[in-house]
Amino acid sequence: MTKERLYLYDTTLRDGQQTQGVQFSTDEKHAVAAVLDQLGVDYIEGGWPGANPTDSDFFDAPPKTRATMTAFGMTKRSGRSAENDDVLAAVMNANTPAVCLVGKTHDFHVRTALGISLDENVENISASVRHIVSQGREALFDAEHFFDGYAANPEYTIQAAKAAYDAGARWVVLCDTNGGALPHDVRKATKALIDAGVPGDHVGIHTHNDTENAVANSLVAVAAGARQIQGTLNGLGERCGNANLTTLIPTLLLKEPYASQFETGVTHDALRGLRKASRMLDEILNRVPHKQAAYVGASAFAHKAGLHASAIAKDPTTYEHIDPALVGNTRIIPMSNQAGQSNLRERLSGMGIDVPKGDPALQRILDRVKDREAVGYSYDTAQASFEVLARSELGVMPEFFEVKRYRVTIERRRNKYNNMVSLSEAMVVVKVDGEKMLSVSESLGPDGCDRGPVNALSKALMKDLGRYSDIVDDIRLTDFKVRITNGGTEAVTRVIIDSEDGQGRTWSTVGVSANIVDASFDALVDAIRWKLVRDGANDGPKS
Amino acid sequence: MTKERLYLYDTTLRDGQQTQGVQFSTDEKHAVAAVLDQLGVDYIEGGWPGANPTDSDFFDAPPKTRATMTAFGMTKRSGRSAENDDVLAAVMNANTPAVCLVGKTHDFHVRTALGISLDENVENISASVRHIVSQGREALFDAEHFFDGYAANPEYTIQAAKAAYDAGARWVVLCDTNGGALPHDVRKATKALIDAGVPGDHVGIHTHNDTENAVANSLVAVAAGARQIQGTLNGLGERCGNANLTTLIPTLLLKEPYASQFETGVTHDALRGLRKASRMLDEILNRVPHKQAAYVGASAFAHKAGLHASAIAKDPTTYEHIDPALVGNTRIIPMSNQAGQSNLRERLSGMGIDVPKGDPALQRILDRVKDREAVGYSYDTAQASFEVLARSELGVMPEFFEVKRYRVTIERRRNKYNNMVSLSEAMVVVKVDGEKMLSVSESLGPDGCDRGPVNALSKALMKDLGRYSDIVDDIRLTDFKVRITNGGTEAVTRVIIDSEDGQGRTWSTVGVSANIVDASFDALVDAIRWKLVRDGANDGPKS
Repeated sequence: MTKERLYLYDTTLRDGQQTQGVQFSTDEKHAVAAVLDQLGVDYIEGGWPGANPTDSDFFDAPPKTRATMTAFGMTKRSGRSAENDDVLAAVMNANTPAVCLVGKTHDFHVRTALGISLDENVENISASVRHIVSQGREALFDAEHFFDGYAANPEYTIQAAKAAYDAGARWVVLCDTNGGALPHDVRKATKALIDAGVPGDHVGIHTHNDTENAVANSLVAVAAGARQIQGTLNGLGERCGNANLTTLIPTLLLKEPYASQFETGVTHDALRGLRKASRMLDEILNRVPHKQAAYVGASAFAHKAGLHASAIAKDPTTYEHIDPALVGNTRIIPMSNQAGQSNLRERLSGMGIDVPKGDPALQRILDRVKDREAVGYSYDTAQASFEVLARSELGVMPEFFEVKRYRVTIERRRNKYNNMVSLSEAMVVVKVDGEKMLSVSESLGPDGCDRGPVNALSKALMKDLGRYSDIVDDIRLTDFKVRITNGGTEAVTRVIIDSEDGQGRTWSTVGVSANIVDASFDALVDAIRWKLVRDGANDGPKS
Repeated sequence: MTKERLYLYDTTLRDGQQTQGVQFSTDEKHAVAAVLDQLGVDYIEGGWPGANPTDSDFFDAPPKTRATMTAFGMTKRSGRSAENDDVLAAVMNANTPAVCLVGKTHDFHVRTALGISLDENVENISASVRHIVSQGREALFDAEHFFDGYAANPEYTIQAAKAAYDAGARWVVLCDTNGGALPHDVRKATKALIDAGVPGDHVGIHTHNDTENAVANSLVAVAAGARQIQGTLNGLGERCGNANLTTLIPTLLLKEPYASQFETGVTHDALRGLRKASRMLDEILNRVPHKQAAYVGASAFAHKAGLHASAIAKDPTTYEHIDPALVGNTRIIPMSNQAGQSNLRERLSGMGIDVPKGDPALQRILDRVKDREAVGYSYDTAQASFEVLARSELGVMPEFFEVKRYRVTIERRRNKYNNMVSLSEAMVVVKVDGEKMLSVSESLGPDGCDRGPVNALSKALMKDLGRYSDIVDDIRLTDFKVRITNGGTEAVTRVIIDSEDGQGRTWSTVGVSANIVDASFDALVDAIRWKLVRDGANDGPKS
């Protein structure tokens, strides 16, 4: 059976940028475009040239992509020709192969927001689309508020949307602009437009997640005949976000009837890079990855319930709807008070530590985790700290070095040029192989700028660890997360540090204290000890 | 028209606890139950007595709720009677008015996970339900993997689920245990069970969000005839979470056809407490609220696009699918590079600052925000810092005090009892009304425990602010968030501090520096200055 082509249109760089707190630089736009192109979407909407300096810069030197680069804008305004509308001209001047214009199809908006007649609006749509086509570009029309419009005045909404198709638009995209439509609304209105003569393979769907139905609304539109889906990576977007392509892509490739019926530009090979693509976007935006994200979240294949975990150990298909490897994700059996000994052995075995069933150390580890979680620790993500703890209980954790004391001074004052400057200094005393080492460091980077107290402290700590110095030399702190949490009756600070080394290994450690620097110090020490174990540093005289 | 009753079953305390990183204490379970009861759900599933010490404690002294308190467990095991199954006995001994037992309905699981015959499994279901009913309790049966089971062996799955109904179960709940079912799967299988003779008003739906369809799957089951929805507050739950009641409740109460067709236990008055209920759960769990959450998220009614914002100013219904006040939420016009002057004036006016159209200060504020965002600041949430910035540009921000310098020392060492202890000391020099004040403070709380450097610093800073001391006296630091972000070419630390005062006002401020203590200090200073402005502290000699 020949598969039908289903097109994916990404708007991460345009509608995704409407997310609160998101503002791409031009370089970041290039990086995101590369991620999208590698994934295999068909269209990349790069922004609105003329409306935003970064968007204009991006289109001045757009990346070469396999995907069709698309500029976004709005239909021409009344009282001037498409050729003489300067807003539209800025969009056309970006010289992209495709141009997508948003326009009104809801009579209420034509009257309230534009203040023009319904016919004039239809003529603006037609003239704008004809203008794009006459310049040899592919035209897309975003039918704003299509579903609300259809509910209020179906004839007019269909007329306005169809005008774009009649004027030569390759795609008429049905937009649930305020995100309020439900699947039954989307099914009905999409079908009505197709019945009115716009072929389904010219109809697209653009949804928002204001009722958590963005994905379902996209799927129901496809069932009704639409053949283009618009969305964003990680569901970025205005208000509650756009339809999440990171979720839709695996659903379309792995689930029936979509897998048998449709072909997209995304290969199964590219699909295995999905989790990585999702994380890269988070990294570019410096956002904390959403743990519960469908398919790609760190928790998406985390089996916390004891019953599930033991069945998973027998056969993963018992509690997994897909094989996590298909989207580049991995299974996790997290530690927690609910975890039984079977979870624990599974987890230890994943770390290369095999412990026989019934070993009394297993219960000691569970108790220790429980006690520490009660004072604010969390080992769900800080797997390296968990490993250090478990190894200690199992008697396979060398001490390596002992911290005797440390002191950090943080100062802000005026320098000789009367500028406010800040500076930290750290002193650490450790004992390695029976010998005491005093190390001191300051927080200034090579450029003379202050890098803060944790930087000074980590540099002092790693400065001289005797014969371990070479091994810890390539540790790099990549992220640092802080939460005020409840340890017993008092608020304490939990620090989670993500580290990376020269081999590209990444690991997370946790420290808890009322004192943020102290908590960071403990997490740093765990990070170093984990690295020393993993690199097989032997424990010297004590081993 | 008489409305049909639709029942809401909350499993935040049971399936919600399967969320990675979530572990309720008994007190927290009581607090969550109170939130749920006030909202108006029909059932509260409190946990699995016997499987988890906290759950057992909770059921030892359960809260009095209007909602039906329900204990969770599993159907009896083979080879013993329901009366003699100790796991089931522990569940029955909780003495709740309702009992919900999960059991297998997918033949593959009966064979793989249980290793018993298909008939034996059906008999275990029947006997378990009969046992609950014979004790005078309401029986619910969670049909595990119902949709996968239906796809694999429809006859057996229907037979097993129907056995529970025939044995007297008030509800047969169709569970999409691994979260892999899509709306068309759910519609078909739900309809099949009802057609097989289990009336829809005895059928419930329990979905997971592994394909982002948990809400849509719940709605489609209701359309097929089911009359109970199971879910959790904020969509907590195993892996990607359960169906989100925080989203389903407003959809059912505010959207058609649900609003006209159904009655639930949630009143429109309680609905206005929805955002608060959602935040209370986050607070209990010390989780960062999900900004893009449907209906209740901080971004759910945030209009960042310039076009949207100006239309919203004319008529909010142009870009809002519901009135945010109906769920206790509020509209936000966030600051950002994309924000135009109209957004800005709207936002300032919300702070009580009216600025005439075209005032040149408006562009200066936008430029200043843009510059600061480029070095790592973020004003989307830190509205108080934004207000301080805007007031400064508008010339309506008194200086109040000047910070001359500060110094913080953090130390960890052994005390005289040979225990490791940590301690911070801070010294701050400020100038108020031309007079220099030196204040010093340490990080020890009243109990002698270390509270860390930011605590020492904030105490020293607030110790003597001259005539402002009384006003800042009731400021309390409630949260403290840290992100490593990119300021220009170098990684910097962004600190957001949430403060609260004696009048219950809460406000957020931001500080950015490579030095976490320095960034915290700046956020603290903004917090104090905002409070002084809001409390009308006059700026003395300089005013």
